[in-house]
Amino acid sequence: MSATAEILSELESLRLIDPHTHINPHSAASETLADILGYHYYTELAHSSGLAKNQIEEPGITPKEKVGRLVPLLSTIENTAQYSWLLEMCQVFFGFEDDRITEANWEALYDSAKTKMDESDWEQQVLERSGLDGVYLTNDFDDPLTGFDTSFYVPCLRTDDLVFHLSKADVRERFQKATDSAPSDSAGLKDAIGKLFAHFKANNVRACAISLPPFFAPEQVDAATADTVVGKVFSGAELTECEQTSLSRFVFWSLAEFCVEYELPFDLMIGVNRRVYEDGVFQGQDLYDKRVSLIQYKALFNAFPQVTFPVSVLSETSNQELVSYAWIFPNVVTNGHWWYSNIPVFIERDTRARLQAVPRTKQVGYYSDMYKLEFALPKFAMYRRILARILAEEFVGQRGWSAEKAVELGTQVLRGNVESIFGS
Amino acid sequence: MSATAEILSELESLRLIDPHTHINPHSAASETLADILGYHYYTELAHSSGLAKNQIEEPGITPKEKVGRLVPLLSTIENTAQYSWLLEMCQVFFGFEDDRITEANWEALYDSAKTKMDESDWEQQVLERSGLDGVYLTNDFDDPLTGFDTSFYVPCLRTDDLVFHLSKADVRERFQKATDSAPSDSAGLKDAIGKLFAHFKANNVRACAISLPPFFAPEQVDAATADTVVGKVFSGAELTECEQTSLSRFVFWSLAEFCVEYELPFDLMIGVNRRVYEDGVFQGQDLYDKRVSLIQYKALFNAFPQVTFPVSVLSETSNQELVSYAWIFPNVVTNGHWWYSNIPVFIERDTRARLQAVPRTKQVGYYSDMYKLEFALPKFAMYRRILARILAEEFVGQRGWSAEKAVELGTQVLRGNVESIFGS
Amino acid sequence: MSATAEILSELESLRLIDPHTHINPHSAASETLADILGYHYYTELAHSSGLAKNQIEEPGITPKEKVGRLVPLLSTIENTAQYSWLLEMCQVFFGFEDDRITEANWEALYDSAKTKMDESDWEQQVLERSGLDGVYLTNDFDDPLTGFDTSFYVPCLRTDDLVFHLSKADVRERFQKATDSAPSDSAGLKDAIGKLFAHFKANNVRACAISLPPFFAPEQVDAATADTVVGKVFSGAELTECEQTSLSRFVFWSLAEFCVEYELPFDLMIGVNRRVYEDGVFQGQDLYDKRVSLIQYKALFNAFPQVTFPVSVLSETSNQELVSYAWIFPNVVTNGHWWYSNIPVFIERDTRARLQAVPRTKQVGYYSDMYKLEFALPKFAMYRRILARILAEEFVGQRGWSAEKAVELGTQVLRGNVESIFGS
Repeated sequence: MSATAEILSELESLRLIDPHTHINPHSAASETLADILGYHYYTELAHSSGLAKNQIEEPGITPKEKVGRLVPLLSTIENTAQYSWLLEMCQVFFGFEDDRITEANWEALYDSAKTKMDESDWEQQVLERSGLDGVYLTNDFDDPLTGFDTSFYVPCLRTDDLVFHLSKADVRERFQKATDSAPSDSAGLKDAIGKLFAHFKANNVRACAISLPPFFAPEQVDAATADTVVGKVFSGAELTECEQTSLSRFVFWSLAEFCVEYELPFDLMIGVNRRVYEDGVFQGQDLYDKRVSLIQYKALFNAFPQVTFPVSVLSETSNQELVSYAWIFPNVVTNGHWWYSNIPVFIERDTRARLQAVPRTKQVGYYSDMYKLEFALPKFAMYRRILARILAEEFVGQRGWSAEKAVELGTQVLRGNVESIFGS
Repeated sequence: MSATAEILSELESLRLIDPHTHINPHSAASETLADILGYHYYTELAHSSGLAKNQIEEPGITPKEKVGRLVPLLSTIENTAQYSWLLEMCQVFFGFEDDRITEANWEALYDSAKTKMDESDWEQQVLERSGLDGVYLTNDFDDPLTGFDTSFYVPCLRTDDLVFHLSKADVRERFQKATDSAPSDSAGLKDAIGKLFAHFKANNVRACAISLPPFFAPEQVDAATADTVVGKVFSGAELTECEQTSLSRFVFWSLAEFCVEYELPFDLMIGVNRRVYEDGVFQGQDLYDKRVSLIQYKALFNAFPQVTFPVSVLSETSNQELVSYAWIFPNVVTNGHWWYSNIPVFIERDTRARLQAVPRTKQVGYYSDMYKLEFALPKFAMYRRILARILAEEFVGQRGWSAEKAVELGTQVLRGNVESIFGS
Repeated sequence: MSATAEILSELESLRLIDPHTHINPHSAASETLADILGYHYYTELAHSSGLAKNQIEEPGITPKEKVGRLVPLLSTIENTAQYSWLLEMCQVFFGFEDDRITEANWEALYDSAKTKMDESDWEQQVLERSGLDGVYLTNDFDDPLTGFDTSFYVPCLRTDDLVFHLSKADVRERFQKATDSAPSDSAGLKDAIGKLFAHFKANNVRACAISLPPFFAPEQVDAATADTVVGKVFSGAELTECEQTSLSRFVFWSLAEFCVEYELPFDLMIGVNRRVYEDGVFQGQDLYDKRVSLIQYKALFNAFPQVTFPVSVLSETSNQELVSYAWIFPNVVTNGHWWYSNIPVFIERDTRARLQAVPRTKQVGYYSDMYKLEFALPKFAMYRRILARILAEEFVGQRGWSAEKAVELGTQVLRGNVESIFGS
């Protein structure tokens, strides 16, 4: 057995905790193949290949109709990594045996998937087959966090709305309801945010999390400015761009302060521009500007040495900065391979750099970012194969490590650090 | 036979259409070795290695003298990919058998090349040996497009002069002559541009094309502003930097509008700064600023869903953005490996990313960018070898595809998409 | 023997000149293991992994105590390239036979290292074992350059203080003392700087050198502005940010002028932001902003065709620009793999690009950047292994070169160009 195969076999036997997903714990597994093919990775690629948005999102179509419309486009994306996930899911979970999903075979696949998904323990089957010991969520600030097992489906407080969207009336309304408060100044807003942290902390929260546009640079805002913009936004007045920046910075800085108080890591997902392609399909509209630097986070990383910042970067051109900042700042940790960087060519190179220059204790290897449970399996499988190959070539082959020692490193990156960094 | 060799053999048997060149259809093949060694890739490298510009460009020297001056410098660049093209051309076309072109052997090579090039069907020999079924051109807006077979040498309307150089008197003069018009406002200018499109359309044009500096960001310009700057420039007045930007944007936007009307793809070649090295040799003066983002094209990509934009990026740090934008925007297509990115290390990585994340229908694998026909062979050969290796390692090796299926993918990227995207 | 092994064997037999180090020629080799483990690459990684700065830098601790505090953290960084250098040094120089440095074995290692280092000819042993024929230094402008053999420990004039820190009283004081002058205008400052060049030239200086922040863009400053800012800074007045920029530009431009006069290469190390992590350990506070472009050096490269600029870039995202600028500008040379880019994944890719597109005469392959002599061995060993692999795979394997020809290329890049570019 080659070193790669030996290491991969060990890594495949590991049970995992998935530290970042968008799972709805009340409906974690898929109900039909439409839940899988409806994932934006497929709808946006099908749309990119020519399928009209209104074909995909037409109100009232059945799940089977939706799949039937997407399938003809699959031939145009079968080269993609995303397609390889689809195929692996169908093969592993539904016994699919062909090497392509076509207009000729999709209905049988749809039906066999439906049969499996209809089994009462389907969610448990998926979790078991995928080796998942825990799944982190992405919860809106006003999520009641009830009705599910928070020790398995672990809450994370997602804060994009608080930092960037308090100027929207519906967000303020949700906020006021969730916090039972009507802030008129910065102290009031901070108190109210504190209530959210208390609520989440009481429900096993493990991280505060946010996605950030490339132009954002956190800074502390003076109290007078904060009071002004908080007063203005909660009175319903429109903010100037500059005032919005101050408000975002004030809220963001407050979140970091609560991360100190509540001893929470603060997941930063840096670099996304929202709604770049305005007529794109649902969740298929966001892109980015690679001209972003972690130097924008200098003030933050210096001001909060007590807070661990697991950082994800959207552009692969940011990976070396991430490696360097994690090498220097004790509170910066590398976190997974996000979105447009979540394809093998970038994962491999980014992983090599991290393994070569970041302390082994400061790397969270991978998260699935999934919306439905079935995706953890192929995505982690992709990562494990890449990781095994790097460990075999570079550590066993070039540095002369034993396979056992290489597996220890892989295990720490895949599983151990999730527990040590987020708590277990 | 290895999978790589098997796939390469199939890819090598393909006949090609070269979708972007600078061929002069009236003098497509080389007449002496000076036409090959005079390519800026060699003159600039020789100059970079120490040969004075006036040695290379001295008026009145014969082609043989020019080659004789360049040859001694070749030993300094024999490591480069560019040199490997030269060697391959000499070996394949002229029966050169040494592994280096030296001061001792170049004259014999020069003479044997001359003998071949003097054959009356040399152009056809090169096309046949290179497997070319079509060669796209880069035509000035005032090119009469006569005297050659436009079904083989396919016109493309190059528009740099229109967008960036109408403030030059000689460009305006050429423009007024070509369009038989004297625009004084934006409507007049647009009408005149329309005449160019009509002329090109009548001559089998397949694309509008432009190279763009890193600081350019297309936007629609309001009519009043457009009228002012058009009036000003055609009256011969000097434009401010801001006015020049408005003029460039107005013309560029008009070109996109005509691409809708005439159903033409709009080739964008993004990222070049002209005349950075002011004392460089001819065509060896341009460089770039990698700080450019496709977010600058957000307005354009959203405004023209009917236009296909084959996009080339100059800096490899832009490739992931290109992949992501092509993954999301239906009208963005990846196009070749341009200039400073046209060396194996970047081609390989960029190709991997594109094959992993862009629909297979939306990738134009390669173009030669050549000035003389002989260059298609070694440049496409370089690309085919890299493509075969990726297909073998990644698709056959890692994903378990058959070699046949991998060859289909390679064929589509190399040839099929050129026809489906530009028309055949 | 594989081609890689054959080439590596030849490259390992080469004797070297190390063209950029921070060696103190009066104390070049280490005295205890603390001199090695005290290198900022280890202290910053240990700190990043959790060791408090005051543990590392506590005044009064013995070298052995310092090592004892760092050793427990080594288990967290044994994956890094930096750790692999440490292990290789210990194995080669001190006969260390374990595969990890642990709390159980470090004291024996410390003692055996001490025994070796105490030998009177330790410095010569290290130089001999490392195959070093010369070591370039980084000298402060006021270094007397006495008491050592400048034909072996070759002076380089480091100019960061002059360009960026004349506004500090202590730097001005050192400058006035070193130049025996009190400049009040730009001519006076330039004369004084000239004295430094004369002093260094009299002592075998081989380069002027500087590290530059990403926001710096050299330009010529008009005399009136220069007079004003020079007068102001030497009168002790505080400069505005804009005035500081003018002063920096004036001094920088003057340095380039003296490089013409004294026929010196000007080493540019582009891209570092100082003191980003303000509470970091000694020399472990600097990071960077990847948003820098060599276009910022357009005016400089054009204005000084007589000066050779060996350029190092801090971010790997700058490597393609460096390759392209060295391909076009005769006076731009690629120089080594600096700091955060000095790990295998980046060295390999950057080296491939340089070998594929930059004349072989214009590449300085590697420098160690070391503070203590023992580091040259593992750092150059890392580079030689990567270089041998590239030469074997790409030049012998893909291009059909003989191993001998590949070794010639490697030899030129590793050794020959250091002599031809810096003088021998």
